[in-house]
Amino acid sequence: MTERASIPVVVNGAAGKMGKEVIKTIANAEDMTLVGAVDNKPDILGQDAGEIAGCGALEVPILNDLQSVLVLATQEKIQGVMVDFTHPDTVYDNVRSAIAYGVRPVVGTTGLNEEKLQDLGEFAEKASTGALVIPNFSIGMVLLQQAALRASQYFDHVEIIELHHNQKADAPSGTAIKTAQMLAEMGKTYNPPLVTEKEHLAGARGSLADENIRIHSVRLPGLIAHQEVIFGAPGQIYTLRHDTSDRSCYMPGVLLAIRKVTELTSLVYGLEKIL
Amino acid sequence: MTERASIPVVVNGAAGKMGKEVIKTIANAEDMTLVGAVDNKPDILGQDAGEIAGCGALEVPILNDLQSVLVLATQEKIQGVMVDFTHPDTVYDNVRSAIAYGVRPVVGTTGLNEEKLQDLGEFAEKASTGALVIPNFSIGMVLLQQAALRASQYFDHVEIIELHHNQKADAPSGTAIKTAQMLAEMGKTYNPPLVTEKEHLAGARGSLADENIRIHSVRLPGLIAHQEVIFGAPGQIYTLRHDTSDRSCYMPGVLLAIRKVTELTSLVYGLEKIL
Amino acid sequence: MTERASIPVVVNGAAGKMGKEVIKTIANAEDMTLVGAVDNKPDILGQDAGEIAGCGALEVPILNDLQSVLVLATQEKIQGVMVDFTHPDTVYDNVRSAIAYGVRPVVGTTGLNEEKLQDLGEFAEKASTGALVIPNFSIGMVLLQQAALRASQYFDHVEIIELHHNQKADAPSGTAIKTAQMLAEMGKTYNPPLVTEKEHLAGARGSLADENIRIHSVRLPGLIAHQEVIFGAPGQIYTLRHDTSDRSCYMPGVLLAIRKVTELTSLVYGLEKIL
Amino acid sequence: MTERASIPVVVNGAAGKMGKEVIKTIANAEDMTLVGAVDNKPDILGQDAGEIAGCGALEVPILNDLQSVLVLATQEKIQGVMVDFTHPDTVYDNVRSAIAYGVRPVVGTTGLNEEKLQDLGEFAEKASTGALVIPNFSIGMVLLQQAALRASQYFDHVEIIELHHNQKADAPSGTAIKTAQMLAEMGKTYNPPLVTEKEHLAGARGSLADENIRIHSVRLPGLIAHQEVIFGAPGQIYTLRHDTSDRSCYMPGVLLAIRKVTELTSLVYGLEKIL
Repeated sequence: MTERASIPVVVNGAAGKMGKEVIKTIANAEDMTLVGAVDNKPDILGQDAGEIAGCGALEVPILNDLQSVLVLATQEKIQGVMVDFTHPDTVYDNVRSAIAYGVRPVVGTTGLNEEKLQDLGEFAEKASTGALVIPNFSIGMVLLQQAALRASQYFDHVEIIELHHNQKADAPSGTAIKTAQMLAEMGKTYNPPLVTEKEHLAGARGSLADENIRIHSVRLPGLIAHQEVIFGAPGQIYTLRHDTSDRSCYMPGVLLAIRKVTELTSLVYGLEKIL
Repeated sequence: MTERASIPVVVNGAAGKMGKEVIKTIANAEDMTLVGAVDNKPDILGQDAGEIAGCGALEVPILNDLQSVLVLATQEKIQGVMVDFTHPDTVYDNVRSAIAYGVRPVVGTTGLNEEKLQDLGEFAEKASTGALVIPNFSIGMVLLQQAALRASQYFDHVEIIELHHNQKADAPSGTAIKTAQMLAEMGKTYNPPLVTEKEHLAGARGSLADENIRIHSVRLPGLIAHQEVIFGAPGQIYTLRHDTSDRSCYMPGVLLAIRKVTELTSLVYGLEKIL
Repeated sequence: MTERASIPVVVNGAAGKMGKEVIKTIANAEDMTLVGAVDNKPDILGQDAGEIAGCGALEVPILNDLQSVLVLATQEKIQGVMVDFTHPDTVYDNVRSAIAYGVRPVVGTTGLNEEKLQDLGEFAEKASTGALVIPNFSIGMVLLQQAALRASQYFDHVEIIELHHNQKADAPSGTAIKTAQMLAEMGKTYNPPLVTEKEHLAGARGSLADENIRIHSVRLPGLIAHQEVIFGAPGQIYTLRHDTSDRSCYMPGVLLAIRKVTELTSLVYGLEKIL
Repeated sequence: MTERASIPVVVNGAAGKMGKEVIKTIANAEDMTLVGAVDNKPDILGQDAGEIAGCGALEVPILNDLQSVLVLATQEKIQGVMVDFTHPDTVYDNVRSAIAYGVRPVVGTTGLNEEKLQDLGEFAEKASTGALVIPNFSIGMVLLQQAALRASQYFDHVEIIELHHNQKADAPSGTAIKTAQMLAEMGKTYNPPLVTEKEHLAGARGSLADENIRIHSVRLPGLIAHQEVIFGAPGQIYTLRHDTSDRSCYMPGVLLAIRKVTELTSLVYGLEKIL
């Protein structure tokens, strides 16, 4: 890549777990350049973002004023991108600021409800600025979900097993619920029964999501984050499984989003829209 | 094997699914000989047991009078064995008859309760006759259970997933409940919690057996009979899995039982006792 | 379904394993009717095809003259279909005969080479008759292959494990080789190495198909037919697995083919084309 | 645990990856106390071992003179233990020094050949000092190997699949080779063939270890360290699988070794001996 093609990127939430991973990833990407880093942790103010991320000095200090950093992303011919992994309380304002400066947001922070999303969508539309809100940056999981939807056209029986470390309090996982919802929206009811089932121990058959889809949640130390969607038909089983071992798995999705958002002129929701 | 070492075997329930499989298996075993076959289905009376089983004629007619067939198993120097896959209603009487004739019973039929078992045990004891009552002839499953008990000494966290075809009405499977019971009897409570769990959909975390062991039951067409016992500890997962695809998997256990019962002089319960 | 919508079907190879399964399936399908059955085994000539298939009498005798049976499929308003599971030596002639009679062939028999396929294609084209040649009727496996091709756009690393019973002499399986070929045709080379690999035991890293795709073949009694395609990227694994337990798994593909061939006017190759 | 029961422990190789993990683990164990830490990296000399390990100050400085640190482990009523994760070149001398001081070695360092092991064994014997040399501290993997040996008594067919990240150059893994050796020493030849196998692509059937055991090695980014031993028999599959996700998995084995070595009076090799 020639230097003039390099996308200027600002990372907001630079000292968080995801922020640091994103900075390392950008440092290794030939077609983008880290031009600014924002974090509000007081003790690291002014430190080098690359040093904090563990990839060596990048000569980009961590600042705590988003607006002055956004300016740094407007100095090149290519419009800049802001990657936001901050906090539900601040993400809405962050995105508005970015759009106001002509910097395209890629948002991994949760907490934008339907109303705020619509509002930000209108704001981006008026400004003709691309924006991406991505609840799950895992390309592998999106591929699994798409393959599951395709399979649902030919298989009438499906169950989901998700397995996570025992520090996870919630069950089922948000991703498993989302996967079940996507399957439920295919317009069919799954798992027509052959027999009248009888649970000798309550809960044995798992939880019941919409359209009769069962979700089972396993919690054990040593597990990380795993999901299986199992389709069954007479004589065959078709299984889709995704295993996550660390957050590096989200980086291909982040890179894809940074590249794609520069081609957009409105707000788009979900990684599946840009695959 | 020389002929005089051959164990004479009578199969009771010869035209049932298990009975036919047992007959085929005995026909191929060098150290045993089918000498009699009993079944009370009227339409096959007198037919060749091997023909009915699908392994070619064995010149053993299917009869409906157990006692006269038991006599056939007492003609050789080696004491005979009766394999019983019949019905809960008749199994008690069958076993008493066999012992009375000095023929050693190997029982796969369910339905012998604690009281009847004790009674048969005393009867066998007095007669100094070996007898085996085996609720599950799957050597692989017994090995899995034994390996699980061993692992429970070092792992504090465990969950069970059992997966069966959707014609199975009961959940969890009897074998999964039995496996959990065996683990529970190791004198510890499993799965000490790190966090307060929250089920957003009831049943997500499966059923709760004794000592805090979770069992999850999956039911889909295309599955046959599968069980996983998953142990977790920081940084590692240890999984034991058994897959059954057809009832031929029980035959090594049946052969082992026939051989071992001739060495016993009392009633023994469970395949694990003779492994 | 009303009777006039019923598709008349002839099964050629009616007494083979697949033929019998197809006959049972058609007997249960509301929108098709078995009108003829052909098989050249002499000892079953004239017997009822349903009786032979094990689903009860269908009043369709098994005959050994294909042409006279094809005539039976031309008596209804809807054009008939011939399902062919016969022999590589006869399949070409069977297909030509069917097309000549205006009966649409659905072919599961192997052995049609490139040249014969092209010839039959031209013949079907001239006759404006639909024809389907389907080397693998497993919808689940086609879905797996399609999902693998999709994943190959985002994952650079992939290996295949196929596991079969130990009666299978060939390794890798034809389906695994086909899957690897499909991935290889995506225009990329997989598995760029990070290190120089060293095999201490030859063959440890499996076989090498085109574009650096590894295939591993496991052979054990107790296995049936299983295939895993495993994609890897930093921090994640995405696995697609298909398990076949009996040939009933092919029947949805056969039914789909029978329905679709009536809408075609030329020869189409491969189940993926009609999914 | 009362203080007087606390085992004094010295960690040699305190600033290495395993050394740091061991220090964190000892800091959390109620029945042992870190009394000394040795490492020869010059830049950390004198720093607090707990700070380096990331578990907070333990008031144990890292020193570079093993002998003076060993003295620290001889001040309590309970004999001290030296945990050694250093280098093949120094481990022999380290162990001799420890035994000379009456400090019991627990050795995770590789590189002690047969001859050196025997020599150390004699030295420990004379001194009546316990010593443990443990090539693999994973309790889960030892349990898997023991369960596999048990299964080998009843199953004649077995294959091994090991899966690792693509930074691993060697194939098969040392642990897989070791597992195959243990199975081979059971005095039987596995996998009697039913058919004459034919590899269409060389290596498809994996590598051939002793006694006809196949090992297949998969290498992909996203994998960590996984091993499956798959036993097959007609109608059933019995699978043992171990997944390692990080080196915390070795700590229960290290703790067990520290506790057990204080009860020994000679050199013992292998974790399996103390399970």
